Amino acid sequence: MSEDLKQAALDYHAIPKPGKISVELTKPAETSRDLSLAYSPGVAEPVKEIAKNPEDAYKYTAKGNLVAVISDGSAILGLGNLGPLASKPVMEGKSLLFKRFAGVDSIDIEVDCESPQAFIDTVKRIADTFGGINLEDIKAPECFEIERTLIEQCKIPVFHDDQHGTAIVTVAGMLNALEIQGKKIEDASMVCLGAGAAAISCSKLLISAGMKPENIYMLDRKGVIHSGRDDLNEYKSMFAVETDKRTLDDAIEGADIFLGLSGPDLLSADQVKKMAPNPIVFACSNPTPEIMPEVANAVRDDLIMSTGRSDFPNQVNNVLGFPFIFRGALDVRATAINEEMKLAAAYAIAGLAKEETPKEVLTAYGVDSLEFGKDYIIPKPTDPRLLGAVSNAVAQAAIDSGVATKELPANYPLKSVEDI
Amino acid sequence: MSEDLKQAALDYHAIPKPGKISVELTKPAETSRDLSLAYSPGVAEPVKEIAKNPEDAYKYTAKGNLVAVISDGSAILGLGNLGPLASKPVMEGKSLLFKRFAGVDSIDIEVDCESPQAFIDTVKRIADTFGGINLEDIKAPECFEIERTLIEQCKIPVFHDDQHGTAIVTVAGMLNALEIQGKKIEDASMVCLGAGAAAISCSKLLISAGMKPENIYMLDRKGVIHSGRDDLNEYKSMFAVETDKRTLDDAIEGADIFLGLSGPDLLSADQVKKMAPNPIVFACSNPTPEIMPEVANAVRDDLIMSTGRSDFPNQVNNVLGFPFIFRGALDVRATAINEEMKLAAAYAIAGLAKEETPKEVLTAYGVDSLEFGKDYIIPKPTDPRLLGAVSNAVAQAAIDSGVATKELPANYPLKSVEDI
Repeated sequence: MSEDLKQAALDYHAIPKPGKISVELTKPAETSRDLSLAYSPGVAEPVKEIAKNPEDAYKYTAKGNLVAVISDGSAILGLGNLGPLASKPVMEGKSLLFKRFAGVDSIDIEVDCESPQAFIDTVKRIADTFGGINLEDIKAPECFEIERTLIEQCKIPVFHDDQHGTAIVTVAGMLNALEIQGKKIEDASMVCLGAGAAAISCSKLLISAGMKPENIYMLDRKGVIHSGRDDLNEYKSMFAVETDKRTLDDAIEGADIFLGLSGPDLLSADQVKKMAPNPIVFACSNPTPEIMPEVANAVRDDLIMSTGRSDFPNQVNNVLGFPFIFRGALDVRATAINEEMKLAAAYAIAGLAKEETPKEVLTAYGVDSLEFGKDYIIPKPTDPRLLGAVSNAVAQAAIDSGVATKELPANYPLKSVEDI
Repeated sequence: MSEDLKQAALDYHAIPKPGKISVELTKPAETSRDLSLAYSPGVAEPVKEIAKNPEDAYKYTAKGNLVAVISDGSAILGLGNLGPLASKPVMEGKSLLFKRFAGVDSIDIEVDCESPQAFIDTVKRIADTFGGINLEDIKAPECFEIERTLIEQCKIPVFHDDQHGTAIVTVAGMLNALEIQGKKIEDASMVCLGAGAAAISCSKLLISAGMKPENIYMLDRKGVIHSGRDDLNEYKSMFAVETDKRTLDDAIEGADIFLGLSGPDLLSADQVKKMAPNPIVFACSNPTPEIMPEVANAVRDDLIMSTGRSDFPNQVNNVLGFPFIFRGALDVRATAINEEMKLAAAYAIAGLAKEETPKEVLTAYGVDSLEFGKDYIIPKPTDPRLLGAVSNAVAQAAIDSGVATKELPANYPLKSVEDI
């Protein structure tokens, strides 16, 4: 990042007031009568109703549209374990995105705790406050156990965006890339460099979408995860394959897909050369990808390339997913965000790239057209169609898979955040 | 409450949208550049600054103006232990009052936990998120241990409003009542009916203001708390006095003050008759006071009477205190809300009733004048002078007592919430 951009980011956060979000009133509170309804004595009435019927919390409080963004700060962006307080700007930023893109009220909660169990206990105890919980920037492998336990024990949707948000948007892009390259997901072979939370979640969702587990070579710092290794945790061992391949060099030979969720500059031009015809490279390490697009494109002209960066084509950006996924889940009061809903979100995102791009998106990006193809496999983050398409698909999938407790709202598919 | 008012309160909470608060953006988030400053990659800059210097959280995030209203729902209003979820409308209401009266961003957190220690652990772990913590509707005696431990272990102000907010506003009214009745606090005798959180806190703050401990008779359900009793917890035993008095009838004989923080209709007209000349009756049980004003006034014409109700003169209402106390504490970044700050708040509130009442307050209450006297010992809840006077007094007291970590802001005393 340039020094100018760094200073602009600090100023943005500090001026004119610290931070990015505030809490505001949604009801009048001017007259004595207003106050007697909002607080004592009137407030006793909704209290008694909720005590009789807990579901009435959705009728009389902000719970149903309120998502907590919760982190322990143990894996902040690419910066590592800087602790809960330092993670606050990121979590507030996430809350800002929730509101901006999907009208979801969201508040950040930073948790300072000594163990995964303490984190679980804390989140579980405050969960009643919210309509959903978005876990964020929690390091692996602790994040798996934390998420699994909270999903089991909370009555509201719990979603670790670093895992599943990333997976949903990656799969959306991958489905389109495969289509353009003329490959079937059932036949495609993939090298996944990285075996952290995002890598495992992406690979799992690709399997749900049709990829064969035996066609995936996942690599951690020690190389290919194969069935002969005895140093694998339960999450990695799901991806152990019978193979003689040991290194990235071995695995990349003839691969259809490279998915990088690892670190900067870990894929070489020579390795890209060895991939199958019409290859797909998703180099998602941020801000420096596993291979820069100009380097990869220089050695292959049959390539589709995607990164996590906004300054190259085909950006995999979680903001295409999480705001709308929660929007849909909240609106049919889903008790979970299940595999069906995640896949529905991925297909909905993928579908938009194939439709005509709205004028306002073209204007925002200063281009005349965005045609579905190698340089446009995934919608832009500010595409206003995402709200309607993704939340509708997620809500419908929740209903179809039996985790919704309300019908599809009458105003679905949503047209804009003003509808909410 | 009338059936009409009950329905109006439910409608107020449900229509057009559930609840009373929302989360909004305070920074632009329209363009790609906005988003690159608010989130990735720009957000990494404030993260790194805060990791280097934790105090920078106040510079780059909403922390410094954010107060959590936290409850376990174990003592909701006068309704009892209805649990965390049912308490949510009350806590949201408190957040609404924080914003409306003092521009404090506030979010409610309901905690579902099995023990006071679990509650303490939970609040302590999420405390980094906030600039201050307002505890609410937690039953005694657990609330004492919870508050004491959290004050010790958190770096931010922790304040149990049911105890100290009530105490501050009660003492404010009591100081003025004593003045009007020509009594010195050092000489006045008081019967305190009730020995819960509010009663103990009020009595303590009155002692800080000059009342003699030996002049206070506190009564719990078993009668006068005296030194011969062996059934007292550590909080009650601070108020054990050497006396032969055993009942309310015994204690009220010749008392200057009756302070009721107990339950409906527990003080009789005959008992009021037995009080000293120019007596003071604060019957704060809500909604039904210990004695109705018309009943007490019928037997004594030398009485000053106060209740917790807005439909009688001299309402003791916590909203006169907590928004402005936190405003002052946050603005000088106080590490605690100490006894000096509480007393300063009480004196500041009391002082306003002696000054000329602003026209807008007279208009709001539909009266021609409010003259300091028996029927006007305490300002009205919507008095716009409270913001400037109370927050200034509290901030100055924090500075003078050494718990402030910042100077008095240049815009102090504040003129309106728009200044904040």
